[in-house]
Amino acid sequence: MGISLDELQLAARNHGMPLEALRYDVTPVGLHYLLIHFDVPEVPPDWRLRLGGHVERELELSLDDLRARPAVRRIVTMECAGNGRAQFEPHVVSQPWLAEAVGTGEWGGVELAPLLEEAGVREGAVEVLFGALDRGIDGGVEQAYERALSLGEALAGDAMLAYELNGAPLPPQHGAPLRLVVPGWYGMTSVKWLERITVLDRPFDGYQQVHAYRFRRSEDEEGEPITRIHPRALMVPPGVPDFMTRRRFVEAGPCRVEGRAWSGFAPVAAVEVSSDGGDTWSDADLEPAPDRWAWSHWTWTWQAEPGDHDLLCRARDTAGNHQPLEPEWNVGGYVNNSVQRVAVTVR
Amino acid sequence: MGISLDELQLAARNHGMPLEALRYDVTPVGLHYLLIHFDVPEVPPDWRLRLGGHVERELELSLDDLRARPAVRRIVTMECAGNGRAQFEPHVVSQPWLAEAVGTGEWGGVELAPLLEEAGVREGAVEVLFGALDRGIDGGVEQAYERALSLGEALAGDAMLAYELNGAPLPPQHGAPLRLVVPGWYGMTSVKWLERITVLDRPFDGYQQVHAYRFRRSEDEEGEPITRIHPRALMVPPGVPDFMTRRRFVEAGPCRVEGRAWSGFAPVAAVEVSSDGGDTWSDADLEPAPDRWAWSHWTWTWQAEPGDHDLLCRARDTAGNHQPLEPEWNVGGYVNNSVQRVAVTVR
Repeated sequence: MGISLDELQLAARNHGMPLEALRYDVTPVGLHYLLIHFDVPEVPPDWRLRLGGHVERELELSLDDLRARPAVRRIVTMECAGNGRAQFEPHVVSQPWLAEAVGTGEWGGVELAPLLEEAGVREGAVEVLFGALDRGIDGGVEQAYERALSLGEALAGDAMLAYELNGAPLPPQHGAPLRLVVPGWYGMTSVKWLERITVLDRPFDGYQQVHAYRFRRSEDEEGEPITRIHPRALMVPPGVPDFMTRRRFVEAGPCRVEGRAWSGFAPVAAVEVSSDGGDTWSDADLEPAPDRWAWSHWTWTWQAEPGDHDLLCRARDTAGNHQPLEPEWNVGGYVNNSVQRVAVTVR
Repeated sequence: MGISLDELQLAARNHGMPLEALRYDVTPVGLHYLLIHFDVPEVPPDWRLRLGGHVERELELSLDDLRARPAVRRIVTMECAGNGRAQFEPHVVSQPWLAEAVGTGEWGGVELAPLLEEAGVREGAVEVLFGALDRGIDGGVEQAYERALSLGEALAGDAMLAYELNGAPLPPQHGAPLRLVVPGWYGMTSVKWLERITVLDRPFDGYQQVHAYRFRRSEDEEGEPITRIHPRALMVPPGVPDFMTRRRFVEAGPCRVEGRAWSGFAPVAAVEVSSDGGDTWSDADLEPAPDRWAWSHWTWTWQAEPGDHDLLCRARDTAGNHQPLEPEWNVGGYVNNSVQRVAVTVR
């Protein structure tokens, strides 16, 4: 692997969740992963959310207007669609995540559907577009960051507009004053620094929808849109690390291994762990998730014997989705949910 | 440049401050830079701070005991001693910072000196050792993270023990429940997850003191210890970025450039800006720092003309320290305070 200056610039500003933070039910602010497409924008003092497009009546709402509505809180596990990208061979150039682009927040705000109902979605509407304050150039195109959801997902799902994270006002880097949160979907859907919601009568064809975030095996393929989070289990790397290599050192004897598992398609059905590099697997003890779209805690006791070992874990969900041992390469380096491997020396 | 897997693992867990966050007087939690040597440790429920060693009487203090003492709040700019490391040629392998390993926090807690006075420092004491909860292996040596200060610095300086950041309890990643903050010094001094303070009657010879954090021009040199923060100015990159290259795009005409400047030796005397790659320099407008060890805000109006430009900024302090155009290479890749260069295309 050789990471370029461009990728290092991205890695130094965006950050993953150090995996020992898998021990928290809800990720403390500052440890949740963060992917900022352009810059954290300046928010104008007269910020308003504008909801318009193919609707009966346009809405313009201040943060106080939103806070006056019925509030909802959801514990949601969010993951970057590019998590695992740096493990692809051939190398895919973009934000170089290993496996740590994840976090779980307790998001507070209002549900999306009642706002759309209040505006009155007109006959013929097909999608809802979410426009952000942050601007920049991506793939040669100057743009505000924008992503759309189908009208069905926007109305029927658990999508919400969040102005709080973990009981405190939304921090700037997570989209203050207001962001979309679409539980179960990869993070690119949950548009930060939201200022415009536009109901569309035809599909959105912007860069982040039709070029980025598609699963393409070659450059000339149109590809399939990236949507929901594929299942993944991650463990807290046991023992203590070497500073530079992050290799783990564990004392021989019983070693409690813990982690989290999640899927955006269905509840997690099982987590399995291997201490012999994947030859044999044992079931971990799995706890119920604290919320519909939050990760599940799991534990497993390893009888650690002296020597070098590769610890692996993998999840599957009740819809039959599971984690592959090897990733499926694609142009954008998305959806690499291949199993985590942690190199451990037992002393 | 080619960054290795080891370095990428560090870059994905530790993170810099996205430079647009230079716009905030105090860095919001989650945007402040973060360097975690080993893991964010688990804190035992019966945590106590123990102060002992070469003293008249040992102290054992709970967080409530500390909160019952006179509180102090200081706005402090903190920077990693390795900031700028990734710019060195030949390449230095460790946490690969570009220029973003900085942040300013409003730290709340108690002063260090009164605690040492209460314990009664005995005749012959020379240093004070700060021991952390986080453990791991560094340079082949298993260790808890530990660093010492001279008795003079510990008693006469502005060192404090912080249990709050920006008015809220200290977050885990910044050292909860208690950390040392040594204003004006590079961040390695401000030991996180503090559990032991030991007054020593001879100099501390642990790894982080005698091997790491020394300015050495060759491996066999003993080198000089890294101490205070050398002056630096950084600007908010103007205009909008390209996602991948982070190159900036600005409209022609007057462009307000702003940033911050700091030094751990003395107040900032001046900030200069160049828009021609360093041939000519203009004085920026410099505001007073909000606290003795906090950064100063500066602004400058650039008459941006179409074309490609390198914007540079540099600070000097009232003690005569300044920023070099080119860094001075050293084994550990420390103290690279060479001037920031921001590539801008004016349209």
